[in-house]
Amino acid sequence: MEFRIEKDTMGEIKVPADKYWGAQTERSRNNFRIGPQASMPIEIIYAFAVLKKAAALTNYDLGVLEKEKAELIATVCDEILTGRHDNQFPLVVWQTGSGTQSNMNINEVIANRAQELKGGSLKDEKRFLHPNDDVNKSQSSNDTFPTAMHIAAFKVTMEITIPGITGLRDTLSKKASEFRDIVKTGRTHFMDATPLTLGQEFSAYVQQLDKGVFAIENALRNVGETALGGTAVGTGLNSPRGYAKAVAQKIAKLSGFPFVSAPNKFEALAAHDALVELSGAFRRVAVSLMKIGNDIRMLGSGPRCGIGELKLPANEPGSSIMPGKVNPTQAEALTMVAAQVMGNDVAIGIGGSNGQFELNVFKPLIAANILQSAQLIGDACLSFSVNCVAGIEPNNQVIQKHLENSLMLVTSLNAHIGYNKAAEIAKKAYAENITLKEAGVSLGYVTAEDFEKWVDPQKMAGL
Amino acid sequence: MEFRIEKDTMGEIKVPADKYWGAQTERSRNNFRIGPQASMPIEIIYAFAVLKKAAALTNYDLGVLEKEKAELIATVCDEILTGRHDNQFPLVVWQTGSGTQSNMNINEVIANRAQELKGGSLKDEKRFLHPNDDVNKSQSSNDTFPTAMHIAAFKVTMEITIPGITGLRDTLSKKASEFRDIVKTGRTHFMDATPLTLGQEFSAYVQQLDKGVFAIENALRNVGETALGGTAVGTGLNSPRGYAKAVAQKIAKLSGFPFVSAPNKFEALAAHDALVELSGAFRRVAVSLMKIGNDIRMLGSGPRCGIGELKLPANEPGSSIMPGKVNPTQAEALTMVAAQVMGNDVAIGIGGSNGQFELNVFKPLIAANILQSAQLIGDACLSFSVNCVAGIEPNNQVIQKHLENSLMLVTSLNAHIGYNKAAEIAKKAYAENITLKEAGVSLGYVTAEDFEKWVDPQKMAGL
Amino acid sequence: MEFRIEKDTMGEIKVPADKYWGAQTERSRNNFRIGPQASMPIEIIYAFAVLKKAAALTNYDLGVLEKEKAELIATVCDEILTGRHDNQFPLVVWQTGSGTQSNMNINEVIANRAQELKGGSLKDEKRFLHPNDDVNKSQSSNDTFPTAMHIAAFKVTMEITIPGITGLRDTLSKKASEFRDIVKTGRTHFMDATPLTLGQEFSAYVQQLDKGVFAIENALRNVGETALGGTAVGTGLNSPRGYAKAVAQKIAKLSGFPFVSAPNKFEALAAHDALVELSGAFRRVAVSLMKIGNDIRMLGSGPRCGIGELKLPANEPGSSIMPGKVNPTQAEALTMVAAQVMGNDVAIGIGGSNGQFELNVFKPLIAANILQSAQLIGDACLSFSVNCVAGIEPNNQVIQKHLENSLMLVTSLNAHIGYNKAAEIAKKAYAENITLKEAGVSLGYVTAEDFEKWVDPQKMAGL
Amino acid sequence: MEFRIEKDTMGEIKVPADKYWGAQTERSRNNFRIGPQASMPIEIIYAFAVLKKAAALTNYDLGVLEKEKAELIATVCDEILTGRHDNQFPLVVWQTGSGTQSNMNINEVIANRAQELKGGSLKDEKRFLHPNDDVNKSQSSNDTFPTAMHIAAFKVTMEITIPGITGLRDTLSKKASEFRDIVKTGRTHFMDATPLTLGQEFSAYVQQLDKGVFAIENALRNVGETALGGTAVGTGLNSPRGYAKAVAQKIAKLSGFPFVSAPNKFEALAAHDALVELSGAFRRVAVSLMKIGNDIRMLGSGPRCGIGELKLPANEPGSSIMPGKVNPTQAEALTMVAAQVMGNDVAIGIGGSNGQFELNVFKPLIAANILQSAQLIGDACLSFSVNCVAGIEPNNQVIQKHLENSLMLVTSLNAHIGYNKAAEIAKKAYAENITLKEAGVSLGYVTAEDFEKWVDPQKMAGL
Repeated sequence: MEFRIEKDTMGEIKVPADKYWGAQTERSRNNFRIGPQASMPIEIIYAFAVLKKAAALTNYDLGVLEKEKAELIATVCDEILTGRHDNQFPLVVWQTGSGTQSNMNINEVIANRAQELKGGSLKDEKRFLHPNDDVNKSQSSNDTFPTAMHIAAFKVTMEITIPGITGLRDTLSKKASEFRDIVKTGRTHFMDATPLTLGQEFSAYVQQLDKGVFAIENALRNVGETALGGTAVGTGLNSPRGYAKAVAQKIAKLSGFPFVSAPNKFEALAAHDALVELSGAFRRVAVSLMKIGNDIRMLGSGPRCGIGELKLPANEPGSSIMPGKVNPTQAEALTMVAAQVMGNDVAIGIGGSNGQFELNVFKPLIAANILQSAQLIGDACLSFSVNCVAGIEPNNQVIQKHLENSLMLVTSLNAHIGYNKAAEIAKKAYAENITLKEAGVSLGYVTAEDFEKWVDPQKMAGL
Repeated sequence: MEFRIEKDTMGEIKVPADKYWGAQTERSRNNFRIGPQASMPIEIIYAFAVLKKAAALTNYDLGVLEKEKAELIATVCDEILTGRHDNQFPLVVWQTGSGTQSNMNINEVIANRAQELKGGSLKDEKRFLHPNDDVNKSQSSNDTFPTAMHIAAFKVTMEITIPGITGLRDTLSKKASEFRDIVKTGRTHFMDATPLTLGQEFSAYVQQLDKGVFAIENALRNVGETALGGTAVGTGLNSPRGYAKAVAQKIAKLSGFPFVSAPNKFEALAAHDALVELSGAFRRVAVSLMKIGNDIRMLGSGPRCGIGELKLPANEPGSSIMPGKVNPTQAEALTMVAAQVMGNDVAIGIGGSNGQFELNVFKPLIAANILQSAQLIGDACLSFSVNCVAGIEPNNQVIQKHLENSLMLVTSLNAHIGYNKAAEIAKKAYAENITLKEAGVSLGYVTAEDFEKWVDPQKMAGL
Repeated sequence: MEFRIEKDTMGEIKVPADKYWGAQTERSRNNFRIGPQASMPIEIIYAFAVLKKAAALTNYDLGVLEKEKAELIATVCDEILTGRHDNQFPLVVWQTGSGTQSNMNINEVIANRAQELKGGSLKDEKRFLHPNDDVNKSQSSNDTFPTAMHIAAFKVTMEITIPGITGLRDTLSKKASEFRDIVKTGRTHFMDATPLTLGQEFSAYVQQLDKGVFAIENALRNVGETALGGTAVGTGLNSPRGYAKAVAQKIAKLSGFPFVSAPNKFEALAAHDALVELSGAFRRVAVSLMKIGNDIRMLGSGPRCGIGELKLPANEPGSSIMPGKVNPTQAEALTMVAAQVMGNDVAIGIGGSNGQFELNVFKPLIAANILQSAQLIGDACLSFSVNCVAGIEPNNQVIQKHLENSLMLVTSLNAHIGYNKAAEIAKKAYAENITLKEAGVSLGYVTAEDFEKWVDPQKMAGL
Repeated sequence: MEFRIEKDTMGEIKVPADKYWGAQTERSRNNFRIGPQASMPIEIIYAFAVLKKAAALTNYDLGVLEKEKAELIATVCDEILTGRHDNQFPLVVWQTGSGTQSNMNINEVIANRAQELKGGSLKDEKRFLHPNDDVNKSQSSNDTFPTAMHIAAFKVTMEITIPGITGLRDTLSKKASEFRDIVKTGRTHFMDATPLTLGQEFSAYVQQLDKGVFAIENALRNVGETALGGTAVGTGLNSPRGYAKAVAQKIAKLSGFPFVSAPNKFEALAAHDALVELSGAFRRVAVSLMKIGNDIRMLGSGPRCGIGELKLPANEPGSSIMPGKVNPTQAEALTMVAAQVMGNDVAIGIGGSNGQFELNVFKPLIAANILQSAQLIGDACLSFSVNCVAGIEPNNQVIQKHLENSLMLVTSLNAHIGYNKAAEIAKKAYAENITLKEAGVSLGYVTAEDFEKWVDPQKMAGL
């Protein structure tokens, strides 16, 4: 490989000749060989591109950066956002906890790419843009990285997480309507209970997801605040008057999301409670998804030795050894995602709790986990919705058989003969393997006519 | 000990003669000897007293329970709420996952105490009130226990958690004002950074807690929904028309909190995502408290070999072996509570995710953990506020010494001489153990006059 | 209430006249009103009694404490171990993170009770024993509290946790033998799979618990090390030569457990990784118990609309509204305990990770959680073993029906006709609701005779 | 893109013409678009290559697979292990929970690549090797995937995790020796305490890591067991007699690690407690690393306003805005990794606890998390060791200043004048900002000569 010499305040260092990154990126590459390369999420890089552009334009507006420089920066940011420079960002999550090295990675790439655009060369001793003095003007890693975290998290949540959840919610809701009149046995403690409709069962899932989206939206309010303008420790040192608000507006405009400047920059640098809270909202949804995935796989279990009340779509051969086996694979992927999100939530909480003084230095950890959770939830919900829920059919024969057999229909008799006698009937029916009606009549607690009148599964399910 | 014979649908069983509880409570006592006795939180018992009274009165209003019975139930509930029957509730958290046995414990205590009030005896064969048919009328464990969880969690959160956090927030805010003009060195990466005021540092804590309370309040909206009226599986079987709404209003009135009937009873029985979400909000606050507690103990470290910028109140001798030692004990209690809340949050999430079909059977686990978290946060915040934060004084001498020494004051020079030269100055000052001004002048990058003008910690802190 | 005046290096303070505790205990009581009173686990107090006695006797042996003092200390420690002074220990978990206040609580109680035994009074200005100079001689809270944590955790693990797990393991093993010849359908992905025996199914649980006990025993090796002799920071300052080893031997003798002196006292004070590891081993067992509890409740589900292959003992009426309902309540208690242990594990990990320099100050948190986990696992295993597993019976009728119906018996045909044709048979049988044999013959892939010969569930299960 | 038609028991499907994978891989690719492509860890693929080869050779040895087929399979497996087919494995973690689809991915790639090697074409209707009947012979996904998990986890742990930890341990140990005679102030509760040596401080870290490696090695014993031979549900259906043991020996030989056949195959398929336990051991190490990383960054804090007792290597410019700033970046990466491992541990525990009946279907989740933890710990320890610890130097000037100033030197006086008087001295010295000697003499509790004799930091540190 060919190299060129770059330097920073530490001295000289060799950098791959064909890369835009500079000395600080290269130092980080060498010093942090932890896990797979380039693990810093690309969404963070793109968010940086948005904020670097916003900062440059705002710096120009406020008279602290000349027009040509601002425009060059904006141009390179636009290029980055097309994805064409993705291979210029080789750094890993496991670097400095402020993300300074990724901030410098962007600063260096912008400065060097701009040098080319301006007709210069990466070997020029003197560059038109200085990574710190120009590209990073009015900024610090300490306020840019949190801002990038918020931009990226907000965007993925809005574009992937919420649409995924909502899509699943809508499919479940459609099924709830379809299944409105299907009366089935309920189950509590995994044991036979009184009847309800299959639609009611699905309506609970819809409600869970509706509330989950609501919780995410609540959490997003704080994520909609940008730290930019706080610079090194929150005071805004080296940034022009009016900058924080103006740059937030610019970010809002460029991103299309309603970002506002964080009211307290000290908090915005030192704590990432906003993302801890967002992760908590994701965890709420993960808990819901675990329940929904489990219910559906269990209701579809069988085909002959399980609960068997639902028929799930058969998308793939299920087994490499058992021919003809079909498995609830979508539910499995969904519940694995739920477990991952619950684990990520702990990592984020630990990272969030370990900030000190003016800066939390678990930023890349928090970013990587929140973005993974956001994407996995969205993708998994969509996959589960399209590849499983949309194709669910009730197995009416099994549902009907279970309903008729359920001893818990006896509950209707409470109001007529009291709990104790009703219990006697149920126990007798179970012990002697007879119907409730047979048991009730033979005990003399109810006539056959009254039984028919009082024990009506449809009515018990509220139809 | 003397015993009397009680019976239920399983048959006869001996019960301590002087206790109001009956057969089902006794069975649970015998079958679940797990951990210390009577671990079911008393707040759950009191919440049950509220809801049993509300249910009885509503049953009367709707014509399904006679007046005398309703009034007797209400009277015993009022007695329970005074605390005089606390020793009638011997059951543990680790019982059936629906809390049925605690529901029956209350039902039995009410029925038997009522028998006494009515002039009867615990040995009467026939009781005026039947635990199931009367006291539990229009109810199931499956809708009462979740309702009790919500009442208890709402109440403790409103009466202990939020006031505790708010009290701490107010004390921190007062300190932030007091410390408004104290300029000090900032620290990022635990390393010296540019200056800010001590007031600004404290303002971040205030902001964290403000947002934490906001998150809790958001989560409380769902906790303000009652499951009552869903009965066994959510359909409301065996409850009269209009009951769910009416009983929620009654609970709201009796408790003084704005409870409403849950819009989807199936979800309210099958999932406890509302409490998972509340726990997530508590976790957010725990993360904040860990940061605040750590900062304050570190800022107060020393007295001679630490950071030493704060003087914390000396409440107790700190060491059994080191005379005169004083420790940041309140911060330690606070951060231990934070760790507990973070652990409880995981337990709650796991419990919440493992519901199946029409009922989540991790209810007592969830209840115990959410109530512990709620109380510990509230108590610990209050303790920390009163016994530590209120008495914090700045150590101005140390603060001033650090401020003057900090090499990061050099950051002000960026705008005048560029990042690279400023870095050279800082490095030279550090290497030669001289002042920034000395280094800057000797390098020829700045005059002594300009240095004085440009490097002004007060201005850097935004004063 | 009557009071007397006590004093410490902070000055005077009023203490309840009838209590043995002194000034420092009282200060802690007043300064840490967090959660319920006296939450410091009594096992920690008893462990302290063992170590205080061991320390006193060792101090006497090594010539630094006079005989009468040593004997008086030993006498009070013996009294404490009878439980008669339990109400002398009012402090909470949420105190100083070193547990200094509980150490002083013991020191004070011993000194004051000794004063009485010696014929003096609690009001004597001068006491025969000084809490620090005599009772705490050659000790610091920093080495006594970790030692008490290890003694208590070791003891509860040996006396409650392991016997509980082993008891459950033995009952499961007995059932595995009993069920050795019962062939049943297997289930993978919660779907019908090839056959195995019910005994094989239970043998997996036995293996899980065997390995769990093994993991706990591995972890106990480190817990068997005592920090005593490290005093304030690990150097052993103010303790006589030979003390650390001698006192460990004394503790081993008094406790009956093989304690040895920790090889590195600095680690023993600064880190509680040994208990983090023990908690990890408990978590392993919790994970196993969640699986076992879930399997058994699901296999016992029904009675008529579930899997229904096991009959679980009916210990209590299951429902307050559904007469005759019986629930897998022991499995529910067990799995709630599993969730709690998994949450406690996170709290312990967070506490363990937050130590700084020479002392971890999350000691009481770690102690409380590890002891709760240890007891809950032991108690819950015992309860589940005795009240559930011991009474489990197979439902042979259901087992047989499922076995005969299972389409996955087709797997036997792979070796004879290949996976693809076998799959065709299974699919046809499912689609047309016919038997595998009928499908196989009608497709012409197998004769009825070959089918009978090749598809033998007994052989498939390895019988 | 060009396509060819492949088919499986579900029917036909288009597959990229130039890829070796077949119908089932393609279905999974289409049905599980969750997160980034190809997220199934490559270590799992390589482990599969080892076990497929071992299975083929064993099948040949046992007479159930012809020689040419076995050799072809072995050849393709060897090719896979060179890395040249890495792009043939496009599947994600979030697929079926048994990993069946990745098992089939390997089976298909082997069968199709073998077709080429044999001189055929991917378009041949009839293939020499059948993915199920030949490549998967005597196997099921249910026993291969767990085996692959164990092989991969064992290998990464042995080759990356343990060497990383041991490397760090050795560097710390070397430093502990170097720093053997440097006496410094101790710190407990983050407050000044009695002296110890810097070497002693580092020796605690060494001990933590030694015990951590020991815990990992204990856990590895179970990971050294292979599930292979259990096939679909643990009975070994469709595998030849003697196969399980023989194939484990073959795996041991091919991998170079001491694998043995799992004694209970039912457990090996249904539970992944062995990996849960390994993750727990990793978590123990993570907890240690968090402590070590924090200590070192705090001891190195400053350079002028912190603790400042260590000088850490300056590897990169620390700040994009603060010139000359150097940060403890390696400690930050290390502690972020610790947080991640703690989060992964929770995900693994949740996955492990959710197995049902004969199969745990959270396998890919568990695999991905355990492998990430294993690699991150190893890499981060190495990075921290080489880039930070190896270059640590004591700042003797600061250490000496702190040592002399520490008020806790007073502890030496306990034995001579008692705790109470010693405390008075320390308090007076602090209040009047004088030395301990001055305070002691002025109080008349000690002469200057005795003070000099009794208070000797070197002796206090045990030198």
